[in-house]
Amino acid sequence: MLVRHTGDFRWENVPLLAYKEEGSHFKNISRQVLCEGLADLSCQLRYFEILPGGHSTLEHHHHVHLVVILRGDGDVLIGDEIYHARENDVLVIPPQTWHQFRATADYPLGFLCIVNTERDRPTRPSEADLELLRQNPEVASFIRS
Amino acid sequence: MLVRHTGDFRWENVPLLAYKEEGSHFKNISRQVLCEGLADLSCQLRYFEILPGGHSTLEHHHHVHLVVILRGDGDVLIGDEIYHARENDVLVIPPQTWHQFRATADYPLGFLCIVNTERDRPTRPSEADLELLRQNPEVASFIRS
Repeated sequence: MLVRHTGDFRWENVPLLAYKEEGSHFKNISRQVLCEGLADLSCQLRYFEILPGGHSTLEHHHHVHLVVILRGDGDVLIGDEIYHARENDVLVIPPQTWHQFRATADYPLGFLCIVNTERDRPTRPSEADLELLRQNPEVASFIRS
Repeated sequence: MLVRHTGDFRWENVPLLAYKEEGSHFKNISRQVLCEGLADLSCQLRYFEILPGGHSTLEHHHHVHLVVILRGDGDVLIGDEIYHARENDVLVIPPQTWHQFRATADYPLGFLCIVNTERDRPTRPSEADLELLRQNPEVASFIRS
Protein backbone atom coordinates (compact mmCIF):
# COMPACT_ATOMS: atom_id res chain seq x y z
CA MET A 1 0.00 0.00 0.00
CA LEU A 2 2.83 2.41 0.88
CA VAL A 3 6.17 2.77 -0.85
CA ARG A 4 8.00 4.87 1.70
CA HIS A 5 10.34 7.63 0.56
CA THR A 6 13.47 7.11 2.65
CA GLY A 7 15.07 10.45 1.75
CA ASP A 8 17.11 11.89 -1.12
CA PHE A 9 14.76 10.43 -3.73
CA ARG A 10 15.23 6.80 -2.78
CA TRP A 11 12.34 4.55 -1.76
CA GLU A 12 12.10 1.56 0.59
CA ASN A 13 12.75 -1.74 -1.18
CA VAL A 14 13.03 -0.03 -4.56
CA PRO A 15 16.35 -0.86 -6.24
CA LEU A 16 18.37 1.80 -8.02
CA LEU A 17 18.60 0.49 -11.58
CA ALA A 18 20.65 1.28 -14.63
CA TYR A 19 18.72 3.54 -17.00
CA LYS A 20 19.16 0.97 -19.78
CA GLU A 21 20.96 -2.35 -20.12
CA GLU A 22 23.78 -0.95 -22.24
CA GLY A 23 24.85 1.79 -24.60
CA SER A 24 26.81 5.01 -24.72
CA HIS A 25 23.87 7.13 -25.88
CA PHE A 26 22.98 8.20 -22.32
CA LYS A 27 25.01 9.47 -19.38
CA ASN A 28 24.71 9.70 -15.56
CA ILE A 29 21.09 8.59 -15.35
CA SER A 30 19.40 6.10 -13.03
CA ARG A 31 15.94 4.52 -12.86
CA GLN A 32 13.67 3.38 -10.01
CA VAL A 33 10.38 1.61 -10.66
CA LEU A 34 7.87 2.87 -8.09
CA CYS A 35 4.91 0.94 -9.48
CA GLU A 36 4.94 -1.88 -12.03
CA GLY A 37 1.27 -1.49 -12.95
CA LEU A 38 -2.01 -2.21 -11.19
CA ALA A 39 -5.29 -4.07 -11.67
CA ASP A 40 -7.18 -1.61 -13.88
CA LEU A 41 -4.34 0.89 -14.26
CA SER A 42 -1.97 -0.40 -16.91
CA CYS A 43 0.70 2.18 -16.33
CA GLN A 44 4.14 2.07 -14.83
CA LEU A 45 5.45 4.79 -12.57
CA ARG A 46 9.20 5.32 -12.74
CA TYR A 47 11.55 7.89 -11.21
CA PHE A 48 14.54 8.89 -13.29
CA GLU A 49 17.39 10.97 -12.01
CA ILE A 50 20.05 12.61 -14.14
CA LEU A 51 23.20 13.88 -12.47
CA PRO A 52 24.78 17.19 -13.57
CA GLY A 53 26.08 16.92 -17.11
CA GLY A 54 24.09 13.78 -17.79
CA HIS A 55 21.37 13.08 -20.33
CA SER A 56 18.80 10.51 -21.41
CA THR A 57 18.89 8.83 -24.81
CA LEU A 58 17.77 10.90 -27.79
CA GLU A 59 14.94 8.72 -29.08
CA HIS A 60 11.34 8.45 -30.17
CA HIS A 61 8.67 5.76 -29.89
CA HIS A 62 4.97 5.29 -30.32
CA HIS A 63 4.11 5.31 -26.60
CA VAL A 64 3.66 8.61 -24.78
CA HIS A 65 5.42 9.83 -21.66
CA LEU A 66 3.67 11.76 -18.94
CA VAL A 67 6.34 13.43 -16.83
CA VAL A 68 6.32 15.38 -13.55
CA ILE A 69 9.55 17.08 -12.47
CA LEU A 70 10.21 16.21 -8.81
CA ARG A 71 13.71 17.52 -8.26
CA GLY A 72 15.80 20.34 -9.64
CA ASP A 73 15.45 21.56 -13.18
CA GLY A 74 16.87 20.90 -16.60
CA ASP A 75 16.34 21.13 -20.32
CA VAL A 76 14.14 18.92 -22.39
CA LEU A 77 13.97 18.57 -26.15
CA ILE A 78 10.49 17.66 -27.38
CA GLY A 79 10.26 17.60 -31.17
CA ASP A 80 12.18 20.69 -32.20
CA GLU A 81 11.50 22.74 -29.07
CA ILE A 82 13.74 22.96 -26.02
CA TYR A 83 11.92 23.55 -22.75
CA HIS A 84 13.43 24.56 -19.45
CA ALA A 85 11.55 22.35 -17.01
CA ARG A 86 11.36 23.07 -13.30
CA GLU A 87 10.02 21.40 -10.17
CA ASN A 88 6.35 20.37 -10.45
CA ASP A 89 6.15 21.13 -14.17
CA VAL A 90 4.21 18.50 -16.10
CA LEU A 91 5.38 17.45 -19.55
CA VAL A 92 3.86 15.31 -22.24
CA ILE A 93 6.05 13.60 -24.82
CA PRO A 94 3.71 12.80 -27.71
CA PRO A 95 4.04 9.69 -29.90
CA GLN A 96 6.89 9.51 -32.44
CA THR A 97 8.48 12.71 -31.15
CA TRP A 98 12.22 13.05 -30.67
CA HIS A 99 13.03 13.82 -27.05
CA GLN A 100 15.98 14.08 -24.71
CA PHE A 101 16.37 15.20 -21.09
CA ARG A 102 19.53 16.95 -19.92
CA ALA A 103 20.63 18.00 -16.42
CA THR A 104 22.12 21.32 -17.39
CA ALA A 105 22.51 22.78 -13.89
CA ASP A 106 24.99 21.73 -11.20
CA TYR A 107 22.41 19.64 -9.33
CA PRO A 108 20.35 16.58 -10.27
CA LEU A 109 17.23 16.60 -12.42
CA GLY A 110 14.72 14.05 -11.11
CA PHE A 111 11.34 13.26 -12.60
CA LEU A 112 8.43 10.86 -12.46
CA CYS A 113 7.60 9.27 -15.80
CA ILE A 114 4.32 7.46 -16.39
CA VAL A 115 4.06 5.06 -19.34
CA ASN A 116 1.78 2.29 -20.50
CA THR A 117 2.94 -1.08 -19.14
CA GLU A 118 2.74 -2.40 -22.72
CA ARG A 119 4.83 -0.24 -24.99
CA ASP A 120 7.03 -0.32 -28.05
CA ARG A 121 10.80 -0.12 -27.95
CA PRO A 122 12.42 3.27 -28.57
CA THR A 123 14.07 4.15 -31.88
CA ARG A 124 17.35 6.04 -31.96
CA PRO A 125 18.13 8.51 -34.70
CA SER A 126 19.87 7.38 -37.89
CA GLU A 127 22.57 9.55 -39.41
CA ALA A 128 19.90 10.96 -41.73
CA ASP A 129 17.62 11.75 -38.75
CA LEU A 130 20.50 13.50 -36.99
CA GLU A 131 21.23 15.54 -40.08
CA LEU A 132 17.61 16.66 -40.19
CA LEU A 133 17.55 17.47 -36.46
CA ARG A 134 20.76 19.47 -36.81
CA GLN A 135 19.23 21.78 -39.39
CA ASN A 136 17.88 23.65 -36.38
CA PRO A 137 20.97 25.25 -34.78
CA GLU A 138 19.45 25.30 -31.29
CA VAL A 139 18.63 21.60 -31.53
CA ALA A 140 22.05 20.91 -33.06
CA SER A 141 23.84 22.37 -30.06
CA PHE A 142 21.47 20.70 -27.59
CA ILE A 143 21.44 17.06 -28.60
CA ARG A 144 23.84 14.44 -27.30
CA SER A 145 23.97 11.17 -29.20
CA MET B 1 3.76 19.70 -24.16
CA LEU B 2 4.48 21.62 -20.96
CA VAL B 3 2.05 22.37 -18.15
CA ARG B 4 4.03 24.98 -16.27
CA HIS B 5 3.96 25.07 -12.46
CA THR B 6 3.35 28.72 -11.59
CA GLY B 7 4.15 28.34 -7.89
CA ASP B 8 2.35 27.22 -4.74
CA PHE B 9 1.00 24.10 -6.45
CA ARG B 10 -0.94 25.86 -9.16
CA TRP B 11 -0.37 25.27 -12.86
CA GLU B 12 -0.75 27.48 -15.94
CA ASN B 13 -4.23 27.29 -17.47
CA VAL B 14 -5.30 24.59 -15.01
CA PRO B 15 -8.45 25.62 -13.12
CA LEU B 16 -8.80 25.03 -9.41
CA LEU B 17 -11.89 22.82 -9.16
CA ALA B 18 -14.21 21.68 -6.44
CA TYR B 19 -13.25 18.22 -5.19
CA LYS B 20 -16.75 16.97 -5.98
CA GLU B 21 -19.94 18.55 -7.30
CA GLU B 22 -21.68 18.49 -3.96
CA GLY B 23 -21.88 16.84 -0.57
CA SER B 24 -20.87 17.32 3.04
CA HIS B 25 -18.80 14.14 3.23
CA PHE B 26 -15.56 15.98 2.41
CA LYS B 27 -13.94 19.19 3.69
CA ASN B 28 -11.37 21.78 2.52
CA ILE B 29 -10.20 19.89 -0.52
CA SER B 30 -9.55 21.05 -4.09
CA ARG B 31 -8.78 19.33 -7.39
CA GLN B 32 -6.71 20.23 -10.43
CA VAL B 33 -6.61 18.03 -13.52
CA LEU B 34 -3.06 18.07 -14.86
CA CYS B 35 -3.67 15.57 -17.65
CA GLU B 36 -7.01 14.28 -18.96
CA GLY B 37 -5.53 11.19 -20.60
CA LEU B 38 -3.34 10.56 -23.63
CA ALA B 39 -3.20 8.52 -26.84
CA ASP B 40 -2.05 5.15 -25.47
CA LEU B 41 -2.06 6.15 -21.81
CA SER B 42 -5.62 5.97 -20.54
CA CYS B 43 -4.94 7.54 -17.20
CA GLN B 44 -5.79 10.88 -15.68
CA LEU B 45 -3.33 12.81 -13.53
CA ARG B 46 -4.93 14.96 -10.85
CA TYR B 47 -3.52 17.04 -8.02
CA PHE B 48 -5.59 17.18 -4.84
CA GLU B 49 -4.89 19.50 -1.98
CA ILE B 50 -6.41 19.26 1.47
CA LEU B 51 -6.14 22.23 3.81
CA PRO B 52 -5.46 21.74 7.54
CA GLY B 53 -8.40 19.98 9.18
CA GLY B 54 -9.81 18.87 5.85
CA HIS B 55 -10.47 15.40 4.47
CA SER B 56 -11.50 13.51 1.35
CA THR B 57 -14.65 11.42 1.18
CA LEU B 58 -14.58 8.06 2.95
CA GLU B 59 -15.35 5.75 0.02
CA HIS B 60 -14.43 2.72 -2.03
CA HIS B 61 -14.66 1.79 -5.70
CA HIS B 62 -13.41 -0.78 -8.13
CA HIS B 63 -10.77 1.44 -9.75
CA VAL B 64 -7.36 1.79 -8.12
CA HIS B 65 -5.58 4.97 -7.10
CA LEU B 66 -1.86 5.47 -7.52
CA VAL B 67 -0.83 8.38 -5.31
CA VAL B 68 2.37 10.39 -4.86
CA ILE B 69 2.54 12.88 -2.00
CA LEU B 70 3.86 16.19 -3.36
CA ARG B 71 3.32 18.55 -0.46
CA GLY B 72 3.27 18.28 3.31
CA ASP B 73 2.10 15.16 5.07
CA GLY B 74 -1.06 13.68 6.46
CA ASP B 75 -2.87 10.50 7.43
CA VAL B 76 -4.46 8.03 5.10
CA LEU B 77 -6.86 5.23 5.87
CA ILE B 78 -6.49 2.29 3.48
CA GLY B 79 -8.68 -0.67 4.44
CA ASP B 80 -8.26 -0.86 8.19
CA GLU B 81 -4.75 0.59 8.33
CA ILE B 82 -3.88 4.23 8.95
CA TYR B 83 -0.66 5.38 7.30
CA HIS B 84 1.23 8.57 7.97
CA ALA B 85 2.21 9.66 4.47
CA ARG B 86 4.98 12.16 3.78
CA GLU B 87 6.43 13.97 0.79
CA ASN B 88 7.41 11.65 -2.10
CA ASP B 89 5.75 8.61 -0.52
CA VAL B 90 3.87 6.49 -3.05
CA LEU B 91 0.55 4.89 -2.08
CA VAL B 92 -1.67 2.37 -3.77
CA ILE B 93 -5.37 2.23 -2.97
CA PRO B 94 -6.47 -1.25 -4.09
CA PRO B 95 -9.92 -1.98 -5.55
CA GLN B 96 -12.92 -2.02 -3.22
CA THR B 97 -10.92 -0.74 -0.27
CA TRP B 98 -12.22 1.93 2.09
CA HIS B 99 -9.96 4.96 2.04
CA GLN B 100 -9.83 8.51 3.31
CA PHE B 101 -7.14 11.21 3.27
CA ARG B 102 -6.87 13.72 6.12
CA ALA B 103 -4.64 16.80 6.50
CA THR B 104 -3.82 16.33 10.16
CA ALA B 105 -0.99 18.87 10.42
CA ASP B 106 -1.25 22.65 10.30
CA TYR B 107 -0.20 22.85 6.64
CA PRO B 108 -1.72 21.50 3.42
CA LEU B 109 -1.48 17.90 2.23
CA GLY B 110 -1.09 17.81 -1.56
CA PHE B 111 -0.85 14.72 -3.73
CA LEU B 112 -0.87 13.49 -7.29
CA CYS B 113 -3.48 10.81 -7.96
CA ILE B 114 -3.39 8.68 -11.10
CA VAL B 115 -6.55 6.83 -12.13
CA ASN B 116 -7.90 5.10 -15.21
CA THR B 117 -9.79 7.57 -17.44
CA GLU B 118 -12.67 5.07 -17.45
CA ARG B 119 -13.68 4.25 -13.94
CA ASP B 120 -16.62 3.40 -11.74
CA ARG B 121 -18.28 5.83 -9.37
CA PRO B 122 -17.30 5.68 -5.69
CA THR B 123 -19.50 4.09 -3.06
CA ARG B 124 -19.97 5.71 0.33
CA PRO B 125 -20.42 3.64 3.46
CA SER B 126 -23.88 2.61 4.61
CA GLU B 127 -24.73 2.73 8.31
CA ALA B 128 -23.91 -0.99 8.45
CA ASP B 129 -20.53 -0.38 6.77
CA LEU B 130 -19.76 2.39 9.26
CA GLU B 131 -20.66 0.11 12.15
CA LEU B 132 -18.24 -2.51 10.84
CA LEU B 133 -15.49 0.07 10.28
CA ARG B 134 -15.98 1.43 13.80
CA GLN B 135 -15.31 -1.96 15.37
CA ASN B 136 -11.66 -0.99 15.05
CA PRO B 137 -11.20 1.84 17.62
CA GLU B 138 -8.34 3.45 15.68
CA VAL B 139 -10.43 3.54 12.53
CA ALA B 140 -13.46 4.73 14.51
CA SER B 141 -11.59 7.78 15.76
CA PHE B 142 -10.02 8.46 12.36
CA ILE B 143 -12.92 8.47 9.95
CA ARG B 144 -14.98 11.52 9.04
CA SER B 145 -18.26 10.86 7.26
